[in-house]
Amino acid sequence: MELPNRWLNDIVWDDHGLVPVIAQDAATGDVLMFAFMNREALALTAERGEAVYWSRSRRKLWHKGEESGHTQKVLEIRTDCDNDVVLLKIEQTGGIACHTGRKSCFFQRLGESGQWEAADPVLKDPKEIYG
Amino acid sequence: MELPNRWLNDIVWDDHGLVPVIAQDAATGDVLMFAFMNREALALTAERGEAVYWSRSRRKLWHKGEESGHTQKVLEIRTDCDNDVVLLKIEQTGGIACHTGRKSCFFQRLGESGQWEAADPVLKDPKEIYG
Repeated sequence: MELPNRWLNDIVWDDHGLVPVIAQDAATGDVLMFAFMNREALALTAERGEAVYWSRSRRKLWHKGEESGHTQKVLEIRTDCDNDVVLLKIEQTGGIACHTGRKSCFFQRLGESGQWEAADPVLKDPKEIYG
Repeated sequence: MELPNRWLNDIVWDDHGLVPVIAQDAATGDVLMFAFMNREALALTAERGEAVYWSRSRRKLWHKGEESGHTQKVLEIRTDCDNDVVLLKIEQTGGIACHTGRKSCFFQRLGESGQWEAADPVLKDPKEIYG
């Protein structure tokens, strides 16, 4: 879809020109991952209907799934009351968002004993995903 | 609950000693808000079972709901694969997380016309909430 870019101006970018992004499974409501976008990444995400993030470690655009095949089809783009966070409602290709081979990156739960516990299973060996 | 604080050491705090936090409705899966915590805020959140954030604008601890009464009962604390984001599963008192009187802060949706649209209703007038 061809969108005028005015909506991008409404976003409050941080000092590094980035905005935090939450990706949520549109069907289940599961929060799958958290990453950042710059203006170009968000524009591309809207244009393609697939999530494109900004990799802070590699300092480049990161088309999610470019290596793993686990792309994210974007069904809805939201922002919050301060316009400084983006929420994507997505369809997660392969049902795996995390590089550990799990559905969601948020698989560690604080247990009663005061320790982080892996609460969700590995669905696919990362070695198989990334070869 | 009395927890040893080792789990707090596992969190990767940013340059300002903060970690981004996503609050999600435990029952509906709705993403309600996004904020930050410092170490003390996260420790208090676990201890009390109610969300305590760090207000970056006011530079102080912010017990969510201290003014509005819209506290957040914390049912689960999660972190992601990088240990640098926290996800809370909560029960939202009053069903209103946003200072605009809406269920969620993420009420603005990008419409087909390329403009942000308020997609969720105001449930209570903020003047009534904050007096």
